[in-house]
Amino acid sequence: MAEPIDFYFDFSSPYGYLASTEIDGLAARHGRSVTWRPFVLGAAFKLTGQRALTEQPLRGDYARRDFARSARLLGVPFKLPEPFPFFALAASRACSWVEAPSRAKALAKAVYHAAFGEGRDITPVPVVAEIARGLGIQGLEQGVEQPASKAALRDATDQALARGVFGSPFFFVDGEPFWGHDRLDQLDRWLATGGW
Amino acid sequence: MAEPIDFYFDFSSPYGYLASTEIDGLAARHGRSVTWRPFVLGAAFKLTGQRALTEQPLRGDYARRDFARSARLLGVPFKLPEPFPFFALAASRACSWVEAPSRAKALAKAVYHAAFGEGRDITPVPVVAEIARGLGIQGLEQGVEQPASKAALRDATDQALARGVFGSPFFFVDGEPFWGHDRLDQLDRWLATGGW
Repeated sequence: MAEPIDFYFDFSSPYGYLASTEIDGLAARHGRSVTWRPFVLGAAFKLTGQRALTEQPLRGDYARRDFARSARLLGVPFKLPEPFPFFALAASRACSWVEAPSRAKALAKAVYHAAFGEGRDITPVPVVAEIARGLGIQGLEQGVEQPASKAALRDATDQALARGVFGSPFFFVDGEPFWGHDRLDQLDRWLATGGW
Repeated sequence: MAEPIDFYFDFSSPYGYLASTEIDGLAARHGRSVTWRPFVLGAAFKLTGQRALTEQPLRGDYARRDFARSARLLGVPFKLPEPFPFFALAASRACSWVEAPSRAKALAKAVYHAAFGEGRDITPVPVVAEIARGLGIQGLEQGVEQPASKAALRDATDQALARGVFGSPFFFVDGEPFWGHDRLDQLDRWLATGGW
């Protein structure tokens, strides 16, 4: 049985959103599953000295154009929420708290769609809780406040950094790292060929 | 007659090198020519706060792997020169000094190949002059020291920044900007479709 693909992402990442619409289908075409791993991108930015693209001179205007252009090419809806950038702790902790991977993934997809498909502000806990209720997941307001939920996200982030993850999206296929939505074509070929 | 594609690059850019091996052929398939525009990437970095990928924590190790992996996929030779990063003023000024575009492009290709195909240190003027002599271009040592050569590169860099260029490679197709070797697939599709 082939190893799952690791998909690291932050809910505040537009390119992570784009990748989230593609990665499961791409993996399935090669008989692979995907483990979705939310982490706190800001912790990586502290190490790399980066900040959100939209906050950077020159790069910001291009990034906004590129997000939308890439989404149109994929045929997925895109609307940058305001405020942007934002911290997505509630959604990330929620995915740790929802123990069943399939339910956590459904929640992650719904949150990403709300944030970048609809441009909603998904930072408040009640917004994430409402999205969760739409999937039949109750009690999220209390769940994300549990020390175990917070610790799980911290641990996930530490493990991501220790593995060299510094951006979102970030993938590992059989140990091989791929950074960025625009590396999905190489990742696809890696799965098809076993590497080059 | 369709407008040429603008290709902005710095000779110290590994992804610029990769793009340089592809862009003319890609453009020709759509009946387009390419104007090669060397500029000083460091001037953009001053505005954006960036520095060479290889100098950045976490990102550096990934970048070295990705340069080589992307080159292998393209089937082009790749060897990162030492020292890296470097300043490529001599080569950039030389391209301003060589007035005929076809000769400047031949020189640029040869310099890029020396730097990243063979891993040579192309920062010294005599190295660039030797590469130029191999193409029948004489007198480069004196040419690059002319005030006009230096001014031409400064002007080219100012114009690039004014246009929003902040990385290498960077392209414009009929006014549409594309940043990065990994946007060549979108650029290709833009040429085929006229945009989306």
